[in-house]
Amino acid sequence: MKDIIIASTSTVHGQGSLEYLLDTLKIHFKNTDSILFIPYARPSGITHDQYTDKVSIPFTKINKTVIGIHEFDDPKQAIRDAKGIFVGGGNTFVLVNQLYKNDIILEITSAVNDGTPYLGTSAGSNICGLTMNTTNDMPIVYPPSFKTFGFVPFNINPHYLDPDPTSTHMGETRETRINEFHKFNSQPVVGIREGSWLNVKGKSITLKGELDARIFELSKPPYEVTSGTDLSDLK
Amino acid sequence: MKDIIIASTSTVHGQGSLEYLLDTLKIHFKNTDSILFIPYARPSGITHDQYTDKVSIPFTKINKTVIGIHEFDDPKQAIRDAKGIFVGGGNTFVLVNQLYKNDIILEITSAVNDGTPYLGTSAGSNICGLTMNTTNDMPIVYPPSFKTFGFVPFNINPHYLDPDPTSTHMGETRETRINEFHKFNSQPVVGIREGSWLNVKGKSITLKGELDARIFELSKPPYEVTSGTDLSDLK
Repeated sequence: MKDIIIASTSTVHGQGSLEYLLDTLKIHFKNTDSILFIPYARPSGITHDQYTDKVSIPFTKINKTVIGIHEFDDPKQAIRDAKGIFVGGGNTFVLVNQLYKNDIILEITSAVNDGTPYLGTSAGSNICGLTMNTTNDMPIVYPPSFKTFGFVPFNINPHYLDPDPTSTHMGETRETRINEFHKFNSQPVVGIREGSWLNVKGKSITLKGELDARIFELSKPPYEVTSGTDLSDLK
Repeated sequence: MKDIIIASTSTVHGQGSLEYLLDTLKIHFKNTDSILFIPYARPSGITHDQYTDKVSIPFTKINKTVIGIHEFDDPKQAIRDAKGIFVGGGNTFVLVNQLYKNDIILEITSAVNDGTPYLGTSAGSNICGLTMNTTNDMPIVYPPSFKTFGFVPFNINPHYLDPDPTSTHMGETRETRINEFHKFNSQPVVGIREGSWLNVKGKSITLKGELDARIFELSKPPYEVTSGTDLSDLK
């Protein structure tokens, strides 16, 4: 049974890394002391080692050890053996490129579909959708495909940001961008605000956290859903 | 001799479309009454016809007719015959995808290298750089490559935006993103603020408009250059 947390962000403004999620993660990863970390998204271009060290700190608070996938000789076996997987944020293009390069997309997909608990934040959440076409990141590398895990039958837009009515900047708002996405693609997009997450348990998908999410469906006006809403029928 | 305007934006806040540039464009396109428009970037997903109609309006003020490339049976011949080319803004991924699909990258490159005056705004400016890896746009379609015209030996970041010190949002700033780009790529990036543009005349590249630009070079702190600065040696 799928058991997935798809979080908008790792860090809520004014708090430590993962602080707002730690109680939830204690339960999510209750069956393991050790979490396999996938550091490929490399925020600010830091190395896999640096990123793994950084992520280990909040996890010590709930007595979990974090091991980077790059520390294993056989990453596929590491995924098959893992009892918990965390894919952290950074740049989605860099992340997806490395997942393809190391040929572990199918391994992760089947492990998670078979029940290995998964946590994604930001870029690690983006890839839980059907494609990475709704990432906010800069395309600093060219991945072989935009297709991602598809743990949910729609796309994710993490760090969802409402339009700023005071802005004089002529760049597009997030909502404009997602509406443009729908000129070329048909799947729904869930905009998750910072501090909220989706919880996937088998076939159920529930919005958690304090904030509403914004849903974009093809040819419909976007709408808000409150925390606790069941999104299992969205596709 | 190359004769190119690489503008950050078509529209400055509070003004009409292209208004701040019209006097410059009157001179830039002085040898032709008719401009070939490439509407492929489709802002907000509007059609090629809609976009061409929209762009025609400001050009009537300087007595120029705008014809969309989609109106020609043979787009390659249209480019060879053009005495002025304008590539408008919208989504860079959609634009680059369509340029490749219609196989006109080489035609435009050789026409512009041979002296056909070119105007780019936003996405149409992004593609004047070596690659589109520093676009701000959402990757709503997957183009066959990120390589672009390379009219200048660096990358462009249009709509360059300074960090907002009051923001509580955990997404990356533009500067952070461009620094990440430099973990994977070596060419400089020129961040052009709205209302400024680069003017390429043969081998000279000059910053024009009222605002400074921000230059990012590998392994150097970013720095500002003022209007009038010669950027011919940047590569």
